[in-house]
Amino acid sequence: MNVSAYAANGPHEKLTPFSYELGAVGAEQVDINVINCGICHSDLSMINNDWGMTAYPIVPGHEIIGEVIAAGNAVKNVKVGDKVGVGWFSGSCMSCHECMDGAHHLCSSAELTIGGRHGGFADHVRCHWSWAIPLPEGINLDKAGPLLCGGITVFNPIILAGVKATDKVGVIGIGGLGHLALKFLNKWGCEVIAFSSNPDKKKSIIDMGATQVVDSRNPEELAKIAGSLSFILNTTNVTLDWNSYLAALAPRGKFHNVGAVLEPMAIPAFSLIMGEKSVAGSPLGSPALTRTMLEFCVRHDIYPITEEFPMSQVNEALQHLESGKARFRIVLKN
Amino acid sequence: MNVSAYAANGPHEKLTPFSYELGAVGAEQVDINVINCGICHSDLSMINNDWGMTAYPIVPGHEIIGEVIAAGNAVKNVKVGDKVGVGWFSGSCMSCHECMDGAHHLCSSAELTIGGRHGGFADHVRCHWSWAIPLPEGINLDKAGPLLCGGITVFNPIILAGVKATDKVGVIGIGGLGHLALKFLNKWGCEVIAFSSNPDKKKSIIDMGATQVVDSRNPEELAKIAGSLSFILNTTNVTLDWNSYLAALAPRGKFHNVGAVLEPMAIPAFSLIMGEKSVAGSPLGSPALTRTMLEFCVRHDIYPITEEFPMSQVNEALQHLESGKARFRIVLKN
Repeated sequence: MNVSAYAANGPHEKLTPFSYELGAVGAEQVDINVINCGICHSDLSMINNDWGMTAYPIVPGHEIIGEVIAAGNAVKNVKVGDKVGVGWFSGSCMSCHECMDGAHHLCSSAELTIGGRHGGFADHVRCHWSWAIPLPEGINLDKAGPLLCGGITVFNPIILAGVKATDKVGVIGIGGLGHLALKFLNKWGCEVIAFSSNPDKKKSIIDMGATQVVDSRNPEELAKIAGSLSFILNTTNVTLDWNSYLAALAPRGKFHNVGAVLEPMAIPAFSLIMGEKSVAGSPLGSPALTRTMLEFCVRHDIYPITEEFPMSQVNEALQHLESGKARFRIVLKN
Repeated sequence: MNVSAYAANGPHEKLTPFSYELGAVGAEQVDINVINCGICHSDLSMINNDWGMTAYPIVPGHEIIGEVIAAGNAVKNVKVGDKVGVGWFSGSCMSCHECMDGAHHLCSSAELTIGGRHGGFADHVRCHWSWAIPLPEGINLDKAGPLLCGGITVFNPIILAGVKATDKVGVIGIGGLGHLALKFLNKWGCEVIAFSSNPDKKKSIIDMGATQVVDSRNPEELAKIAGSLSFILNTTNVTLDWNSYLAALAPRGKFHNVGAVLEPMAIPAFSLIMGEKSVAGSPLGSPALTRTMLEFCVRHDIYPITEEFPMSQVNEALQHLESGKARFRIVLKN
């Protein structure tokens, strides 16, 4: 099968039409007809080789909604005709300790949708059956794509940290990831503090589920909530005043990082010791948890706020994201 | 009552005999006849005002074994004649959220045994009844003192991190705290890796309960155990190559710090994110957990390896500790 896609040939280059041949489907693989595909900040990072792991040409796109059109003879769980979602990962070894333990996203030989194979800015994409997540009935296909990466990235920490309905929690950075975190935590039953450096967004942030908006550039506002939060989720990838946020945690509070800030975090040991606090991080989530999240989203009507572009306008869409104007997640439609 | 003690009058000064008047015992307080008192590194830190919070004259000593000789009329749980232990804390408000939640050691107005009142390098000491921990029957009074600070400091993280018998774990720094951690984790049922920069100690470290000793100065030895430990307890207070130890953690592994290293820890966010890892810290432990620990110690015959000095030789004992020659915990006997 010949795949029509959009690829970048080098860092900071515009995407251009690119086609490649897909050989016979592997025994455990499925081929997917791409209905639409979200754009994630990590697509930009990979296009620009920010992490030094990009192979060119690269076809970005890892928030894929599509339909299975071919399946190898050892495929389980999904079949031709099924609607599925594909995120950051597209394969795991299925046999290592982490895979056998249900943590396929921590498999040391996990395959990336946009590294080693080509991604979803295309008419077709291929992946291992385990990462073709079946979509629950009633899901909004137009808006579900960003849940497969942005959504599970913020859903997983809520589970890992054992957040309870009675908790007072915080979210730093109300963008593509952060606004989904607000929606999840609101339905979780929590009191939710949104940290934002943009007071103009206040009304819309409250509408998304925050109880209160704190100006993250204002030390006085941060000081007012000192010692009160049992969980803070950081979705930004810039160096913050870590100690101010550790001070905002209640005793035994957990600071959780999903933003891949490149400079090491300077964490004072005393700030952790005195209140039994912790700093953690996580990537995405497992296939099983992704299914659970999608069911939660359908039950509570949780979707990202999206803007749509036709796939052919991929460069305009990337430019819109890069300029910081996206509200809040872009979906490219085939 | 007049108390005979040993006090320092300034940083790095020798201790000299010092007496002070103890007024009437408070309604919720007990007075204790000091039988013996361990020496902890934090006594040295306080004598030298390393943490900028020392008030002189200071009577150090917060690993106290003694007998209650007077009790206020609102004292609960202990009575005159009881043998008790007193550690780092000597009072908590008893009514804040943390106290009511059983975490009296996280009470923001917790009182220190050697800050605001005088400690156990003396014939008597005073504390709130809640921090006069009743000693279980059969405990070895000569060796129990260091459990009240060093012991609970390393016992609490094992509980907080939810360490299981099936875990492979590591302990960094095999000194006063670390050797107790080895003993606890051995009885926990774990495979226990000791990180030590002193290969001469190897045989004695294995005798204390380690399964294997890894030379912490040898990057090759560290690399060999990459990805294998579900819990690492750091008992040192110096800057380490944090990333090497994070790499030694298995997916979802926890690095726990009880060493009060003054320079902020430079933690790469990526190292946490990729393996769902975390860095935490804790001080001491609650009165309830201290009781549980003491019962565990009696059941499994867990005591520090101690050296004894008479209280009158406190300066020789401090010098012995400061020179790094203590094996492994010093007890001053009245």
